[in-house]
Amino acid sequence: MKYLIIGGVAGGATTAARLRRLDENATIVVFEKGPYISYANCGLPYHIGGTIPERNSLFLQTPTTFGNRFDADVRVNTEVLAIDRTNKKVRVVNRANGKEYEEKYDKLLLAPGTTAVRPPIPGIDADNIFVLRDVADMDAIKAMVEKAGTNARAVVVGAGFIGLEMTENLHKCGCAVTVVEKAPQILPPVDWEIAAEVQHHIIDKGVKLFVNEGVTEFVHHDGGTTVRLQGGNEIEADFVLVSVGVKPLTTLAQNAGLEVGELGGIAVNEYMQTSDADIYAVGDAVETIHPMTGKKQLCYLAGPANKQARTCANNMVFGNTQKYCGAIGTAIAKVFDLSVGRTGLSERQLQTLGIPYKVSITHTGDHAGYYPGSNPVSIKIQFAPDNGRLLGAEVCGHDGVDKRLDIFATTIAHNGTIYDLTDFDHAYAPPFSLPKDPVTVAGLVAENILTEKVKMIQWYELDEMLKHKAEKDFLLVDVRSLLENRAGTIEGAENYPLDELREYAEDIPEDSTIVIFCAIGLRGYIACRILTQMGFENVYNLAGGYKTYSAVKK
Amino acid sequence: MKYLIIGGVAGGATTAARLRRLDENATIVVFEKGPYISYANCGLPYHIGGTIPERNSLFLQTPTTFGNRFDADVRVNTEVLAIDRTNKKVRVVNRANGKEYEEKYDKLLLAPGTTAVRPPIPGIDADNIFVLRDVADMDAIKAMVEKAGTNARAVVVGAGFIGLEMTENLHKCGCAVTVVEKAPQILPPVDWEIAAEVQHHIIDKGVKLFVNEGVTEFVHHDGGTTVRLQGGNEIEADFVLVSVGVKPLTTLAQNAGLEVGELGGIAVNEYMQTSDADIYAVGDAVETIHPMTGKKQLCYLAGPANKQARTCANNMVFGNTQKYCGAIGTAIAKVFDLSVGRTGLSERQLQTLGIPYKVSITHTGDHAGYYPGSNPVSIKIQFAPDNGRLLGAEVCGHDGVDKRLDIFATTIAHNGTIYDLTDFDHAYAPPFSLPKDPVTVAGLVAENILTEKVKMIQWYELDEMLKHKAEKDFLLVDVRSLLENRAGTIEGAENYPLDELREYAEDIPEDSTIVIFCAIGLRGYIACRILTQMGFENVYNLAGGYKTYSAVKK
Repeated sequence: MKYLIIGGVAGGATTAARLRRLDENATIVVFEKGPYISYANCGLPYHIGGTIPERNSLFLQTPTTFGNRFDADVRVNTEVLAIDRTNKKVRVVNRANGKEYEEKYDKLLLAPGTTAVRPPIPGIDADNIFVLRDVADMDAIKAMVEKAGTNARAVVVGAGFIGLEMTENLHKCGCAVTVVEKAPQILPPVDWEIAAEVQHHIIDKGVKLFVNEGVTEFVHHDGGTTVRLQGGNEIEADFVLVSVGVKPLTTLAQNAGLEVGELGGIAVNEYMQTSDADIYAVGDAVETIHPMTGKKQLCYLAGPANKQARTCANNMVFGNTQKYCGAIGTAIAKVFDLSVGRTGLSERQLQTLGIPYKVSITHTGDHAGYYPGSNPVSIKIQFAPDNGRLLGAEVCGHDGVDKRLDIFATTIAHNGTIYDLTDFDHAYAPPFSLPKDPVTVAGLVAENILTEKVKMIQWYELDEMLKHKAEKDFLLVDVRSLLENRAGTIEGAENYPLDELREYAEDIPEDSTIVIFCAIGLRGYIACRILTQMGFENVYNLAGGYKTYSAVKK
Repeated sequence: MKYLIIGGVAGGATTAARLRRLDENATIVVFEKGPYISYANCGLPYHIGGTIPERNSLFLQTPTTFGNRFDADVRVNTEVLAIDRTNKKVRVVNRANGKEYEEKYDKLLLAPGTTAVRPPIPGIDADNIFVLRDVADMDAIKAMVEKAGTNARAVVVGAGFIGLEMTENLHKCGCAVTVVEKAPQILPPVDWEIAAEVQHHIIDKGVKLFVNEGVTEFVHHDGGTTVRLQGGNEIEADFVLVSVGVKPLTTLAQNAGLEVGELGGIAVNEYMQTSDADIYAVGDAVETIHPMTGKKQLCYLAGPANKQARTCANNMVFGNTQKYCGAIGTAIAKVFDLSVGRTGLSERQLQTLGIPYKVSITHTGDHAGYYPGSNPVSIKIQFAPDNGRLLGAEVCGHDGVDKRLDIFATTIAHNGTIYDLTDFDHAYAPPFSLPKDPVTVAGLVAENILTEKVKMIQWYELDEMLKHKAEKDFLLVDVRSLLENRAGTIEGAENYPLDELREYAEDIPEDSTIVIFCAIGLRGYIACRILTQMGFENVYNLAGGYKTYSAVKK
C-alpha cells in the first residue's frame, strides 16, 4: 500500500504518523511545500513577542526525526503540481533543484491548509505589510520588529483571536499598537457582553482601537506608512499586520476535478473522503458538518484537525469505518491578563439561524474569595427555552476560563442541559473553585429563568425601555449599597439597598413595572424573589447586573 | 409555614437561604450550636498557614447580615437538645444564658454535620493534641503554632486530603512536620500510581513520612510529646494534629427515633427526607446513594452539601418534586506545588466492588511544551472493558488538574465513554492545552487498549513477571534513548532506542514475549505497533512507562 500525503504541518503529519502505527508495511511519502514539517503554528505570535525565546522550540519534528520514527519519506520544499486521478499519480516539483517527477499512489491525502487573506487594498503589497501564516511570515515580522526598535508604530488590521494575540505580543515588544476592526466590536465570534470586557482591557493596556472601520489605502512614504480608514482617520505606522482571516487552498483539488463545497473548502463526506474514493482530505482546507446545526462549516482550529487526521487514517487503512465527530467551534485566546473563549453557538449565531434560546449572564469568583488570587469570571450561556438544552457558552476572566469552556463543551457534546451544569460533581477546594462553581451558578441562574423563578431583562431591552420611559413609566431599582451606588449607577435608578428592600417595597404601587439591578445579578435575583412574593407581578432582574451593563455601554 | 433549621454552617445556611427565596412569608429559624454561621470550613488550614491572613475573611456571613438578608431568625450558641416529633417541636438551650425553651415547627431540617474522630489512643486527650473541624480548633492550633515558634516539631496523624493540606500549611509556618499514615500510602482514596507522585513530592519538601504505621501511645513529658508507633519508632513532637476522619453527628436524630443507615449516617430518601415526613436532612451527616454503584455512601464534601441543600429546600416548599442527583466523590487538594484529585471509582474501589475494568495511565504536558511553564500532568482512568464507559479518573500535576477532573466528572455524569474523551472539542491555545489535550490522550490510549491496538501491562504485573523470569523468560526492552537509559532504567532491560528498533527486531526470536517501556508510554506504544505488525504476538507496553514504574517503586 502506498500513501501519498500532501502537506506536512498539522493534519498531514498527524495522519502520516497514525497511518504508520496502523500499517507497518505501507509506503508513506509526505510532500511539504515549505521547508518545515509539524511545526507549532499556534506558537508563532509568542516567538515574535519573545515569550518563546528559542525559535527552534517551534519545530516539534524535523523531516529526519519524523522520517526515522515513522519510517516515512518526508520531502520538504516539494510542491505537488497536479493530481492525475485516472492514473492515480501526482506530478511533483522539488523546489530546491527545480526537478519535476511523478509519484504513484494507492491512497492520497490532501492537507494543504489555508492561505492568509490579503484584501485588494491599494498599497497592501509593500514590504512592511505582513500576514502571519507560516514560519517565513513570523521571521519577517520578527525582523521588522527588531529593525523598527522599541516604540515602533504597529497597526493590526483585524481583531479576531490571532489579531489580538499579535496585539499583545507586539505590545510586549514595546510597539505602540493600533487595532482596526471592521465589525462593531473586537472578537466578532464572541457576543458583545463578553467581548466588551476584553475590549476595555486592551484599551486599558494602552492599545488604540478603531471598530466599525475598514482600511481604504496604505500610503507609503519615507517615514513609514499612512493607514487610511473609511471614516477619514489616518494612522501612521512603521509596519502593519493584516489579520483578517484565511481561506482554504483548493486549487490543486479543483484542478483535479474534486468537488469543492459551498463555503469554498474541499468537500468531504463524514469519513473525510473527497468526491474521489481514493482521495481523502483533512485540516483547515476542508468543509465539515457542524454537529449542532447540521450545516457546513470551515473550521480553522488545531484540535479538530488532529481529530480529523486520526479518523481519516483509520478510514484510509480499514475502509470507511469511523465518522468524524465534528467540531462545535471551541476556541480560546489569552489577551494580556485576560483569557476569553467560546463554544457551541453564540447568541448572534442563534439569531441568524432562527433558533429559539434564552440567555443567562453571571459573574462569579473563579475560586473561593477568601483564598488569595480570586478574580471574577464572566459567563454567558445560551440554552433552549423548552428543555434547557445547552446551546453555547462564552467565558472571560483571569484563571480557569479554559476549564469552564471545557465543561460547557463536554456538556454540549452530550446534548446536556443547564440542569446538568447544576448537578455535576466538580472538583472543589479553595484554590480551585467554590462549593458552587461558576459553571454551577450559570446553570442555577438558567434554571431560575426556565422555572420562572425570575424574569430577566437584557441590557439592550432595558435601553429600549429607558428610551420610552416618558410614554411607559417603570421603576428602576439599584439594590446595591449606598456606597456602590454612589460610585456609579444607571441614570434614573432609585437606590433601595437589598437588606432594606422589604421596607421600601411597602410604598411601591402594586401595579408597577420594576427593573432591578445589583452588581452582578445575585442580589437582584433575591430582590426579585422578595418583590414577586410580595405580590408584584412585573419584576425583572437585569442580566449580569451593573457589571455587564457598564461594560457594554462604556 | 415555620421552618426550623438545626445547623447553620454549610448545608443549613444554604437551605435557609433557598427557603426564603422560595417562600417570602415563611418563618425561618436557624439554630447553630457554635458562635459562627456560614463560615469557610475549607479555608481553616490556610488561615493557620497564613495564606489567608485575615481571620475575618473566613466569615462569609454574620448572624446579623444573614438574618437581615434572608429575613431569618439566626440563633447562634444555641443547641437543640431534643426533637418531639409527635408534637412537632424542639427543645433548645441558649448556651449563653443556659435558658431552655421550646420551638414548634411545620418542617424541620437537620444539618448537624460531623465530629472529628479521636481514636482511643492513650494520651490523646492532652492540650497539644488537636483535631481540625471548626473555628475553635483552628484558633487553638494557630495559637499553638505561634507559641511553639519556628522549627516546632509537628506530627500529623492521617494523610488524607485535610491531613496533607495541614502538612503543607504547618510546613509553611516553619514547622518540621512528620506524617503518620495507617494505610500503605498517603491519600488512600487515590490509587498508588497517582498518589506515589504526591508522596515523593512531600518527602522532597522535607516532610518525614511513616506509612503502614499507627500510633500506639502519646507520652507527654516536659519537652513535649513522644508519639509511639506500632513499628517501634518514636517521634518527638511539640504538638500533634489528628486527622483520621470524621463521623456524622446523629445523636439528636437517633434519640428522636429517626432512622440511621448502615454506615452510621442519618437515613434520607432521594428527596433528602428522613424517616419522618416533616423532617429533612442534608450535609455531611446524611447517607446518600452513590449514583454509579447504587450503594449507600457518606460524603464529606462541600459541593454535594450545597446541591443537597437546594434540592432539599425545593422539596420542603413544593413537596417531594426533585431528586438529589448524588455525588461521585470528585475531590481535589493542593499539596505544595502539586494538585491531586480523583472522581468516580478508583481501581481499588472497582476491585472491592468486583466491577470489571481496564486502566490507562498517561503522562502529558499540561499545555504546549514550547510555551513556557508547561509541566507534566499524570492521568489514570478506569473504564469498562466492554463498552468503554468511563468509571473513574485520578489526576496529578501542577496546573489544570482541576480542569481535567471536571471534564472526567462531567463525562461520568453523562454515562460517557472513553470515546467521548477523544471526541470532545476542547479549548486550545498554547497557554492552556495542546491540540491533543491530556484528557484526549488518556482517551486515545484507552481506545488503543479497547480496540486491541496494543496490549498493556501494569507495573505490578511486570513485577510478577520479573520475579518468575528464571522459569518463564521474556525480553524487557527500554526503547528510550541511550542517554535516558543511562540515567536509570529497569534492571535487566535491553536498550533498543525506538528509532533503531526496526533493525534490532530482526534478531529477536519470533515467539518471544516482549515487554516494552519508554518514559511515559507513547514511544512504547509506537514500538508495540511496529513489533506487532512485524509478526510478534506477545508484545506488551508498560502502562505509564518508566515514570510510573520508578514512582511506584521508589
